Amino acid sequence: MKLPKLKRYQKDFEYSYSFGVNPTLDLIKYRGEQVLKVLLKKEVSENDREDVNRIEEWCKENGVPVSFNERAIERIAYKENTYVIGIFKKYTEDLDPEGDHVVLVEPRNMGNVGTIIRTMKGFKFNDLALIGPSVDVFDPKVVRSTMGALFNIRFKYFNTIEEYMGEYGDHNMYTFMLKGKKSIKDVKFNTPFALVHGNESRGLDEKYLNIGESVVIPHSDDIDSLNLAMATGITIWESRR
Amino acid sequence: MKLPKLKRYQKDFEYSYSFGVNPTLDLIKYRGEQVLKVLLKKEVSENDREDVNRIEEWCKENGVPVSFNERAIERIAYKENTYVIGIFKKYTEDLDPEGDHVVLVEPRNMGNVGTIIRTMKGFKFNDLALIGPSVDVFDPKVVRSTMGALFNIRFKYFNTIEEYMGEYGDHNMYTFMLKGKKSIKDVKFNTPFALVHGNESRGLDEKYLNIGESVVIPHSDDIDSLNLAMATGITIWESRR
Repeated sequence: MKLPKLKRYQKDFEYSYSFGVNPTLDLIKYRGEQVLKVLLKKEVSENDREDVNRIEEWCKENGVPVSFNERAIERIAYKENTYVIGIFKKYTEDLDPEGDHVVLVEPRNMGNVGTIIRTMKGFKFNDLALIGPSVDVFDPKVVRSTMGALFNIRFKYFNTIEEYMGEYGDHNMYTFMLKGKKSIKDVKFNTPFALVHGNESRGLDEKYLNIGESVVIPHSDDIDSLNLAMATGITIWESRR
Repeated sequence: MKLPKLKRYQKDFEYSYSFGVNPTLDLIKYRGEQVLKVLLKKEVSENDREDVNRIEEWCKENGVPVSFNERAIERIAYKENTYVIGIFKKYTEDLDPEGDHVVLVEPRNMGNVGTIIRTMKGFKFNDLALIGPSVDVFDPKVVRSTMGALFNIRFKYFNTIEEYMGEYGDHNMYTFMLKGKKSIKDVKFNTPFALVHGNESRGLDEKYLNIGESVVIPHSDDIDSLNLAMATGITIWESRR
């Protein structure tokens, strides 16, 4: 793939960026075959010297071009102290038909999706389904908030929940809703399962009451709802408890 | 208190702002005595008409000035579609000596603190202690991410954990650390208790191993740590389970 003049990320790019040393290390570790190029600044802090050397060596061994290009980095990066950028071809992957899944319906907030991905990895969930119009997981704001975990999960987009269920019909579906029929404390999660959460502002609509088992996370009336990442984190935690 | 010409919020102001209809309703409901003034735009969406009327009536009954001032709103607000702003005198309050507390040591990220406050209210925690140099909870970015819950909790700043323990010595302290001696799944939380969490980047330092009972939230090696709001949310959830 030939790269054009590099600019700040836009959703329609065929490639995206990892910013900083640790996310770029995770990129080459888990998605090495996607890496197109690495950009470096000449000055590197003493702390990071060793890691940056590892990145350079990896590139040499794998025939990936490295370029010292301060101006390109300054043009692309959001933070001033960025001195490593990995450029990688975007990808998607089938989910594990036997693994437990997290399913997000029309998520909109990049920080939420990033935090969910980081939490998934913390509790051995490796598969994320995104239903309908969703956050672009390759947006650098998502990549950053996953702290590198993005490169270590599988994810796939689906137009509708029916499309997802067509492919992964064996999964036991648990749909999380304020109107859910059962408290999460009483649910026995039968593997392989899918934890399904709705949009930040609307949650899941009524039709999800008839899909799988609908579940509520009981909380006080003092709040309208939990934050999406928090609700998903609690279900991830409980399902592994 | 006499208000100067209104500008975007700064930390050294004696007052802060609630943006939007719902946060302002929570402000007058829970902290009515702190309200200095309400700003309104003339145009209001049909959906919000009734709530805005309630705010106006409340102001009339309580002798709080209301001003139609589009230009001030545009100067202060971050979002274009803001048409209600509550201006309130900042406050602090002693924590409930018999209630369970959340204790955050040097938290830095406004979104995290806001999400934690919202989650606290969801699970009946009403008291937050902030130790050392911390996020300003009155920053509008925090206020917004609490979704109004800020006005419905007590919080107090302390210079050190020792200062906090001097005032609330009866609380059983649970300190959450990667090196914690006991898994959260094996902890019995004895009330009144304090859930103590460290900073986003460093966590709690070694001295906290000798304060109360140190606890770990077990997670996989695939991530360095959980996001602070997520970790705190899981401890809030588990302690109420």
